[in-house]
Amino acid sequence: MASHMQPDALLQLLSPRSVAILGASDNAIKAGGRPIDYMRRHGFAGGIYPVNPNRATIQGLPAFAELAKVPEAPDVVVISVAGQEVEGAIDQCLAVGARAAVIYSSGFAELGEEGAAQQRRLVERARAGGLRLFGPNTQGVANFRSGAILHFSTMINEAPGLDGPVAVVSQSGAGSSIVYGGLRGMGVGVRYMVATGNEADITAAEMLRAIAHDDDIRVMLLYIESLKDPEVLAEAARLAHERDLPILAVKAGRTRAGQLTASSHTGALAGEDALADAFLRQHGIVRVSDFRDLAQYSQIFLGGQRPRGRKVVAISNSGATCVLAADAAEERGLALCEFDAPGVAALREVLPAYVSARNPIDMTTALLGQPQIYGRTLDAVAAQRQADMIFVGFPIGGEGYDFDDFSAQTGRFAQQSGVPVAVAANQDWVAQAFRKQGVPVFESEGAAMRALGMLAQYTQAREAALQGAPRAAAAAVPHAGEARALDEVHSLALLADAGLPAVAHRCCRDEREVRRAVAELGFPLVVKGVSSDLTHKSEHGLVRLNVNSEGEALAAFAEMEAILHRLGVRHGGVLLARQHKGAFELAVGAHLDAIYGPVVMVGHGGVLVEALDDVQFLLAPFTVAQAREAIGRLHIARAFGPVRGMEAVDVDRLAALLVRLGDWFAGANGRVASVDANPVIVPRGDAAPVLVDAVVIAHGEAA
Amino acid sequence: MASHMQPDALLQLLSPRSVAILGASDNAIKAGGRPIDYMRRHGFAGGIYPVNPNRATIQGLPAFAELAKVPEAPDVVVISVAGQEVEGAIDQCLAVGARAAVIYSSGFAELGEEGAAQQRRLVERARAGGLRLFGPNTQGVANFRSGAILHFSTMINEAPGLDGPVAVVSQSGAGSSIVYGGLRGMGVGVRYMVATGNEADITAAEMLRAIAHDDDIRVMLLYIESLKDPEVLAEAARLAHERDLPILAVKAGRTRAGQLTASSHTGALAGEDALADAFLRQHGIVRVSDFRDLAQYSQIFLGGQRPRGRKVVAISNSGATCVLAADAAEERGLALCEFDAPGVAALREVLPAYVSARNPIDMTTALLGQPQIYGRTLDAVAAQRQADMIFVGFPIGGEGYDFDDFSAQTGRFAQQSGVPVAVAANQDWVAQAFRKQGVPVFESEGAAMRALGMLAQYTQAREAALQGAPRAAAAAVPHAGEARALDEVHSLALLADAGLPAVAHRCCRDEREVRRAVAELGFPLVVKGVSSDLTHKSEHGLVRLNVNSEGEALAAFAEMEAILHRLGVRHGGVLLARQHKGAFELAVGAHLDAIYGPVVMVGHGGVLVEALDDVQFLLAPFTVAQAREAIGRLHIARAFGPVRGMEAVDVDRLAALLVRLGDWFAGANGRVASVDANPVIVPRGDAAPVLVDAVVIAHGEAA
Repeated sequence: MASHMQPDALLQLLSPRSVAILGASDNAIKAGGRPIDYMRRHGFAGGIYPVNPNRATIQGLPAFAELAKVPEAPDVVVISVAGQEVEGAIDQCLAVGARAAVIYSSGFAELGEEGAAQQRRLVERARAGGLRLFGPNTQGVANFRSGAILHFSTMINEAPGLDGPVAVVSQSGAGSSIVYGGLRGMGVGVRYMVATGNEADITAAEMLRAIAHDDDIRVMLLYIESLKDPEVLAEAARLAHERDLPILAVKAGRTRAGQLTASSHTGALAGEDALADAFLRQHGIVRVSDFRDLAQYSQIFLGGQRPRGRKVVAISNSGATCVLAADAAEERGLALCEFDAPGVAALREVLPAYVSARNPIDMTTALLGQPQIYGRTLDAVAAQRQADMIFVGFPIGGEGYDFDDFSAQTGRFAQQSGVPVAVAANQDWVAQAFRKQGVPVFESEGAAMRALGMLAQYTQAREAALQGAPRAAAAAVPHAGEARALDEVHSLALLADAGLPAVAHRCCRDEREVRRAVAELGFPLVVKGVSSDLTHKSEHGLVRLNVNSEGEALAAFAEMEAILHRLGVRHGGVLLARQHKGAFELAVGAHLDAIYGPVVMVGHGGVLVEALDDVQFLLAPFTVAQAREAIGRLHIARAFGPVRGMEAVDVDRLAALLVRLGDWFAGANGRVASVDANPVIVPRGDAAPVLVDAVVIAHGEAA
Repeated sequence: MASHMQPDALLQLLSPRSVAILGASDNAIKAGGRPIDYMRRHGFAGGIYPVNPNRATIQGLPAFAELAKVPEAPDVVVISVAGQEVEGAIDQCLAVGARAAVIYSSGFAELGEEGAAQQRRLVERARAGGLRLFGPNTQGVANFRSGAILHFSTMINEAPGLDGPVAVVSQSGAGSSIVYGGLRGMGVGVRYMVATGNEADITAAEMLRAIAHDDDIRVMLLYIESLKDPEVLAEAARLAHERDLPILAVKAGRTRAGQLTASSHTGALAGEDALADAFLRQHGIVRVSDFRDLAQYSQIFLGGQRPRGRKVVAISNSGATCVLAADAAEERGLALCEFDAPGVAALREVLPAYVSARNPIDMTTALLGQPQIYGRTLDAVAAQRQADMIFVGFPIGGEGYDFDDFSAQTGRFAQQSGVPVAVAANQDWVAQAFRKQGVPVFESEGAAMRALGMLAQYTQAREAALQGAPRAAAAAVPHAGEARALDEVHSLALLADAGLPAVAHRCCRDEREVRRAVAELGFPLVVKGVSSDLTHKSEHGLVRLNVNSEGEALAAFAEMEAILHRLGVRHGGVLLARQHKGAFELAVGAHLDAIYGPVVMVGHGGVLVEALDDVQFLLAPFTVAQAREAIGRLHIARAFGPVRGMEAVDVDRLAALLVRLGDWFAGANGRVASVDANPVIVPRGDAAPVLVDAVVIAHGEAA
């Protein structure tokens, strides 16, 4: 859904000067009545024009029989009418020159192909007249700064709007409400709440890109089940990174069961989740699991403090919380490192003698009636640069603990030092005290450490994304027409031409060529009978290993010829190749994904690659650093280091191979449909990985 | 800490008829004052005797100058005095014939070795007089049925006691309070809240074993940082399983950082966490992460509904929640399976036409104003046996949704059908409505599915534990005196004698023996020079592979002799063994753990076993089913199935090997210190795994 408006023009649609409501209701709890009620209660200063042919007034406002009767052209029109009347409503919008319509009505793509066709007609009609559409099947959009609340969530009654630094964008209307409610429940203000519904026109990614232009927004929260326009989301992320504006996202449909359910929910077929994961990671978007996560973990990003690294100091009045915090830190990849000597000395000056200057700092009863020790401890830690981030656990508070004081000190400390702090507290009233001071507070040690881990991950990913390879603006698309599988000889040759380390090989048609190949290649050799008609050569006896002499090579050649002849398949020659032995067999591949474009895969296991399911994906183009990280996420990579006197695997070399494959494959612009190099022999020490077998599927001109 | 009282006698200590408080305070917010205040406010009917030489009355009760002046011998004495006065207080308890003391005082083992010695003296003194001790360094114990509240948690002020079906046992005092507070916050009643502190005498495991005798308790919640007496906890679990009483446990110190912190918190050295994990799993104890988990997930066990299997039906009024629920179900290993034809037919009769009879059931707006559809849907699902468990998601509720009705229907349904239900709700008032009906309700789709997963896991583990091998009452302990490493020849021979599949081998001292070995073993052979002085033979050239003739064998023999001679090490002969090639190299081992006794290990990787860290542990003795499950948890086991026409690995055979190793090793009663068989060659198809190399460390009599 390409946008033909400027992103800031889209943002302006969330700040209409005037709004009309088609299907307006006098009843403030009906969908057609709520936005009127909400806008009036939230002080919307623009015109509100209820349209309803059956009433003279709606909720005390004059009602209009039709849109054309409204005294000014409304910027945005809410369409809250039956599905079959939407097309007419669009025509009315076009006639008065509205800029956008928010279509609450359902009965479109979510019902199947017929509804999808109707929906496409709506879009065509709207596009022709320059009208943008939210929905259909959306709960609407809300701006709590201006009070332009074109959203019918009941949650706005439960938790009245308050302008703030958060934007919520969700395909699901319920999702937008839940996240909004969660934030408001923590006292956090929300500026935008946008539900994109069926996304006939405006997508969630477009909304993020638009909202990234609002300098007051400090975190954007996204819920999607399908992503149609990754290039737009990538651009939104780039804009956001430039001004350090984090995006937290739930991409539902993480599992096969979830994807099947999502496809019946929104009608959109979800792509493979591992690709969504790779996409979000490469673009520095923090992925979380559910609505609750979105609201809860947004807290850690709001204060603007960012860590320099992954060093955490934990402080608590409970020994048990110190232990749980240490566990959680290690599980989240954070370093609960020891204080250096000056750090210990500084802490000894502020801590009572019975409190060890050890990380975590177990305060025991030191803070009972002496809250000032807390602040001095924080300051000592920060002054000595002992911490990139601070965890504070007050698992239980009662008489003698002054949480108004603790929370004020924490807020002051975070502001002054720039060191991020996460608090864990079990009691609501303790949590409230910290929230009042804008201090992020979590329900458990694990949640607080997870928040710090996310913050560290975001900060690192942002830096990588700012330095990273620019993503191609448009994904390569597969060429029309049939692609065909190249045989091994042509596949290896193509990959060698592409600068990839294909095994040294010769394709022989007669004994003379075999003799020359043997002389050129040396021993040991592997001899294979090649045919593009066969995928599993070894099952047909077409692979002979450990060929160690010219005589053996000639015999193997004769045997392969005979087998190919007997099978009656296309004869691709007999391949002689150096036989390589390495420490590991990997699989490397590339394919064009319909959503994400060129994708590179690296996995463990040769023929076992599917069974082991130890696979990572990278969206091309990508950097060597990104490739190295992807390799590092493989389970098998744990064995790549120097073990028992063996040399380490040269991961950089493997990473460079992946980058080269990605660049070449993306550069082929769809002429190459897929690459499946398996196995790739990966040695230890100073030796290159070798592609010893490969199948390339390509269109004629690439082959 | 062996108990010399009957468990039910220990339970009676939580129901004292009379209580004295040494160090009683008139101030109800001081530790020595709180239990008096709490007991009186919670209607404790027995005698309360404050002991304080400086006052005539305490909180309106007559005070006594010393314990001996108290008019009746108190069952239990609270000791709330300075650490150095505790020994004298114990003497007073002994003099009046008290049955137990609850020692709030700190300054013992948690401070180091001197404190630990003092603590040991307390115990000796108490034991001699038949006095049991809680603590020292404990917040105390509470019984909310009788009102015997000898616990000084401030949480009891915040959330007054209410008797109920839950017992909380925690080494950490803060932990006991937090879990208590979490339960009370959900409206759940708690009968026992026990903090065991330093556990000088009574341990958390003993308390669980005692409380398992209280038939009213429906779930026991445990927090520990160290486990001194696994055999007692095993017995507690056995008792609990007999009457389907689940135990949920946090064992903190899951990570290296956590263990270091725990050792400085409680002075106890934590064992390897993987062993704790194996122990809890084998004994059907559900492990969770933190205090919040303990309180939250206890809900799913309270109703008494247990699932027959892992089939879940999900129902929601939100499509997004259906997607998130489907994701969460798959991630928790639950099956969100399709309805069969009769199931669909039954659902079609109760659902409106626009709601698909598909799992998850997306109700969209069907329940607005029509709550009866909800109950009919539940009944139809249960009547057709479509579900072992039901997930209900009401992520957002507002006008038109009658949650008093929904919750009442859910409670009624669970009672009548016996099918467990977990609800996910984001709004507090929605959650409250379900809680009032005793329906478990969780904060997210993921948490609700995790709860159902735990319930299924517990139900399965309980069955396995009831059928499983009885655990040896006392763990085998290492023999005194030095154990020594046997060389490969003796190690393999010992393991072969034990009935384990050691490789066929001969130890040769001269050429005649080599010739005989070659004739008996066949080819190919591996030839190794053996010395108990060397651990890594290959580094010294003492391994020759692919020996395929008598001549080669004799040459290799001569070479090994020469190398051994040159190295000047102990000469253990030259080993000839059949050379095996299999699909996988595993490592198998056994050792005696100081806490958990005999442990069997299985891991992937041969020499890479440490690097790959793909290892599982089993506590011996264990069943073939338990061994099979442990193997199944290995990452590499994903590749054990039939892949690309290759046969599957015979996992039962490998499991039987582990069981045999465990039985033999446990039966050796400490004479064998450890076994390290690596690699174990595991073939595909109908062939046995083979131990091709091994080091056994044993005491003289075993060798």
